[in-house]
Amino acid sequence: MARVGVLIDDMFEDSEYVKPAKAFKDAGHGLVNIGVKMGAVTGAKTGVKVEIDKTASEVRPDDFDAIFIPGGYSPDRLRSNDEVVNFVKQFGATDKPIFFICHGAQLLITAGLLKGRRVTGWKSIIQDIKNAGAEYADQEVVVDRNFVSSRSPADIPAFTKDSLIKLKKISV
Amino acid sequence: MARVGVLIDDMFEDSEYVKPAKAFKDAGHGLVNIGVKMGAVTGAKTGVKVEIDKTASEVRPDDFDAIFIPGGYSPDRLRSNDEVVNFVKQFGATDKPIFFICHGAQLLITAGLLKGRRVTGWKSIIQDIKNAGAEYADQEVVVDRNFVSSRSPADIPAFTKDSLIKLKKISV
Repeated sequence: MARVGVLIDDMFEDSEYVKPAKAFKDAGHGLVNIGVKMGAVTGAKTGVKVEIDKTASEVRPDDFDAIFIPGGYSPDRLRSNDEVVNFVKQFGATDKPIFFICHGAQLLITAGLLKGRRVTGWKSIIQDIKNAGAEYADQEVVVDRNFVSSRSPADIPAFTKDSLIKLKKISV
Repeated sequence: MARVGVLIDDMFEDSEYVKPAKAFKDAGHGLVNIGVKMGAVTGAKTGVKVEIDKTASEVRPDDFDAIFIPGGYSPDRLRSNDEVVNFVKQFGATDKPIFFICHGAQLLITAGLLKGRRVTGWKSIIQDIKNAGAEYADQEVVVDRNFVSSRSPADIPAFTKDSLIKLKKISV
């Protein structure tokens, strides 16, 4: 089955990690939580703890079939770390699937991956998405080649469904 | 003395509000805390409470000589409120001073005020600042006409000093 790298730090939006992660695991896929440093990170709303399995400096694009970026303020923290940004930049060059929701697109902006793409995200970052050269679409889920993006926790079912379709294609 | 509108919401960086606000008041200037709704907002790190004096829908650019945007995640919250963004856009058209630190530039990006300007801000938003058409300068404080900007809490002394110079010019 597919190997999914999850880019996550403190202040992630709890449900945007918990629900897709459970669905990916239930479908048989393997998840590796990638962080800035080892230890646990904590969700912003309900205090969910997530153990980091690998730091960004330890991973390479070959280790994963897809990456997943939950929202909240986790992406803002991740994008200020050069090793995380370099990994995402390198992974982006492979054209393998990238799933991102809410503030997740922020990390792709810093990694320079949004130009010419069609994506969605949280309301506050709409202008940043447009300024990065992407087309913003106000939809519950936007699939543009290898990218699957959504706006908010309300979109999790559609986000998870379309992400699982991408993972299934990898697995067969 | 000068009338300063402070744009603030929950999760502001405590010291980035507290220290400049104290310095402005000590110099005799009047502060009005402008929020999304009435009530108190809470700082992200030490839990400082700030009472909102006016909502964004109640204020007009004529009410203030300058505006001040502390950092933290407060600017991300403010920029998803249309009334706040409209007020900042209108205030920006007056060319009166705007002081912003850390994530503060995010609000100016959504208000469309950064194009062609020279500013600084928190590391995570550097690419957003550049994509908005501004020149990013890695300095403790950047003064560009009516804009005074800084990067982080460590820059507060320089930020406060240059903001006070602008306020003094208004007051005399």
